[in-house]
Amino acid sequence: VDTKNSQFVENELSLLRPADISTVLNEMDTEQAMFVMDLLTVETAAEIISYLDEDVCIPFIRNYPSETIAQWINYIDSDDAADILNELPLQTREEIIAFLDSKEKADYIIDLLHYEEDCAGGLMAKELISANINWTVIQAIDEIRRQAEKVEKIYSLYVVDNQERLLGRVSLKKIILSNDETRIADIYEQGIVAVKTYQDEDEVAEIMRKYDLAAVPVINERGKLMGRITIDDAVDVITEQAEEERQIITGISEDIEEDDNVLMLTRARLPWLIIGMAGGLMGARFIGLFEKDLAILPAMAFFIPLITATGGNVGIQSSSIVLQSLANKSMIGVNYFQRLFKVLIVAIINGVVISVIVFGFTIILGQTVNLAGIVAISLFFVVLLASFMGTITPLVLDKLGINPALAAGPFITTANDLLGLAVYFSTAHMLYSF
Amino acid sequence: VDTKNSQFVENELSLLRPADISTVLNEMDTEQAMFVMDLLTVETAAEIISYLDEDVCIPFIRNYPSETIAQWINYIDSDDAADILNELPLQTREEIIAFLDSKEKADYIIDLLHYEEDCAGGLMAKELISANINWTVIQAIDEIRRQAEKVEKIYSLYVVDNQERLLGRVSLKKIILSNDETRIADIYEQGIVAVKTYQDEDEVAEIMRKYDLAAVPVINERGKLMGRITIDDAVDVITEQAEEERQIITGISEDIEEDDNVLMLTRARLPWLIIGMAGGLMGARFIGLFEKDLAILPAMAFFIPLITATGGNVGIQSSSIVLQSLANKSMIGVNYFQRLFKVLIVAIINGVVISVIVFGFTIILGQTVNLAGIVAISLFFVVLLASFMGTITPLVLDKLGINPALAAGPFITTANDLLGLAVYFSTAHMLYSF
Repeated sequence: VDTKNSQFVENELSLLRPADISTVLNEMDTEQAMFVMDLLTVETAAEIISYLDEDVCIPFIRNYPSETIAQWINYIDSDDAADILNELPLQTREEIIAFLDSKEKADYIIDLLHYEEDCAGGLMAKELISANINWTVIQAIDEIRRQAEKVEKIYSLYVVDNQERLLGRVSLKKIILSNDETRIADIYEQGIVAVKTYQDEDEVAEIMRKYDLAAVPVINERGKLMGRITIDDAVDVITEQAEEERQIITGISEDIEEDDNVLMLTRARLPWLIIGMAGGLMGARFIGLFEKDLAILPAMAFFIPLITATGGNVGIQSSSIVLQSLANKSMIGVNYFQRLFKVLIVAIINGVVISVIVFGFTIILGQTVNLAGIVAISLFFVVLLASFMGTITPLVLDKLGINPALAAGPFITTANDLLGLAVYFSTAHMLYSF
Repeated sequence: VDTKNSQFVENELSLLRPADISTVLNEMDTEQAMFVMDLLTVETAAEIISYLDEDVCIPFIRNYPSETIAQWINYIDSDDAADILNELPLQTREEIIAFLDSKEKADYIIDLLHYEEDCAGGLMAKELISANINWTVIQAIDEIRRQAEKVEKIYSLYVVDNQERLLGRVSLKKIILSNDETRIADIYEQGIVAVKTYQDEDEVAEIMRKYDLAAVPVINERGKLMGRITIDDAVDVITEQAEEERQIITGISEDIEEDDNVLMLTRARLPWLIIGMAGGLMGARFIGLFEKDLAILPAMAFFIPLITATGGNVGIQSSSIVLQSLANKSMIGVNYFQRLFKVLIVAIINGVVISVIVFGFTIILGQTVNLAGIVAISLFFVVLLASFMGTITPLVLDKLGINPALAAGPFITTANDLLGLAVYFSTAHMLYSF
């Protein structure tokens, strides 16, 4: 590419699939990428654009005039097209729509721009094939022929009534195996799964996963067929959810990748480190209150990391188990009291085992029975408290509409550290007052 | 269900989809579930069995004789059937295979039992429709008719030569729009994506995600078409990966859910807590070595949680960013040296910011400039070291074929805690020697 040897590059490109070319382009600088794009047909270029990461795609296509972008959009499905246009300035957006070849495509995109990106309406494409319930198979085949170029992936036809309300579907398999004169009404499948335009993307992905669907129709409140979501979009939602959850749990605040620049990486990490630091300083202040106890029993300091680490580990484990239930929608209908009771039992078992072991080792380490008792008793209560907090926090966050994964993140771990210290030093203080 | 009112339950069931019934059965006890299953047709019962969680399904069906299980297996796709048989004792397995209606199905299942569960061969189903390259469209349609009952979801036909080697595919759309006499050779799509039987399930899922595939053909080393993986199986792989990663990061050692029993919950959590505890005890031992320094400067103890928490947070963040790169297969070809250099820059910036703030606050908290200096300097080095460890550990684990998510889990966090303490107390000791 660097030597601008068009012939060579063109040969290489012809061996690659569009998805692979887009992976390569993701890593190139703008000039190189533009050079490569010029060598491709409009159709291939369009497919590559639709595969590019959004944060690479938008800055890149802004190097081109609206007319060129419109040529690509002609070949891109309405859902991906709307996602791209959504990120462009209003004027560019309208210019592109005006340059589109087909009025229908323009209408599709304008319609999709109304929806939030993270609901079914924002995921769906308008391209689909529908058949009226009163048609025969041959009429449906004519419709497929008419739409074939526009709709790339066809798994089934959606069956609608005269008001375009969704009634069911017919698989292509059935179309092939039926007589031309068979009525759609006689072969279609009723009671199929559909989602509403306003349903959350997480819900849509979960529905497609649960029922093993390759595509799901989207209807509005009145049952009118509005679009179709294909499984590749749901897969992206599932992958993004998992990434988002990992970022939240590990304390990263933006969607960053290792190859982002230093400033972005720092910005995504620093806020969480500062929260942890603030917690640490509060911890320092708190331990300072017990300076006198420490002076009497300096060995108490030895066990500070044990107390805070155990509290953190227990809290994160507890939250993780609740996150799992929330993700799988299991435990619905099980009340809070039952859940907490079970958590309590598990915590008591874990707490007792750990406390007994720690008691033993503390004495082996040469500390007094007194200190070993303090450490073991406070550890037991730390396990109990952290289990409780770790269980209740994600449930409360979820009820408030906040991502419950936050409960396994650094904010709550920091809170658990402080709680652990409070238990430890209070226990010590009380036991020593006697 | 409890009152065994068959008529009522039957009515209710007829309103539900199999996937929903299986959700309900997951929560029932064995007797209730068997009562419900008796009310259903064999076909519906079979579909429900295939939807059940494995850990519920296997104990449940072992209540039935092999003959009944075989009747269900008749209706279950070969991939799910093989997964179920894999978990049954050898004798039951062979009995069931002997009871199957179709010799073909039996052969399919026996073939699939050879593959490991977590490779492409273990994911694929044998049910698919293939067309010889020399056929015409009408011959292909006859083949679809012949296989229609066995193959539920058909998106396209795989085109093979006389040795059954995969050449390409024809979409059903093309079949519908082509003349009966058209030769498959003239309309099929070449150079399609396929996976090898031995490829890892993670790779398969990533390939299907990258190329937006609803199904992918599986071939053996010689290019022979062996089976087909549909996207719903890849979605399950992606979901399981995400769950597994969360469990590893949060320190849970088995695939457990909140509704598992107390013993299982404890067993899954205790090992990690004990690792954390062991780390804590080693930390206690370590701090004990510096008892004299602590006696001179007891306020040093105040900042122990700050040091350990910061080390933990930085380490987890660093690992998380590497995990993201590994998952997206980005940064391939970027060498370790470049990666670490960038990590170093980010760590220096984060380290300087945090150290300066902590220095200021430590003085505000009323500590000496001396102590504030010790805390700030060691914090800076802790950030550096934890960044380095957090980056290098997942890369090394990945190279060793171990799940790199372990690097963001409690084991490494515990190691980072100890490292932090070492840096803190050594710095203090050195600075005080002067």
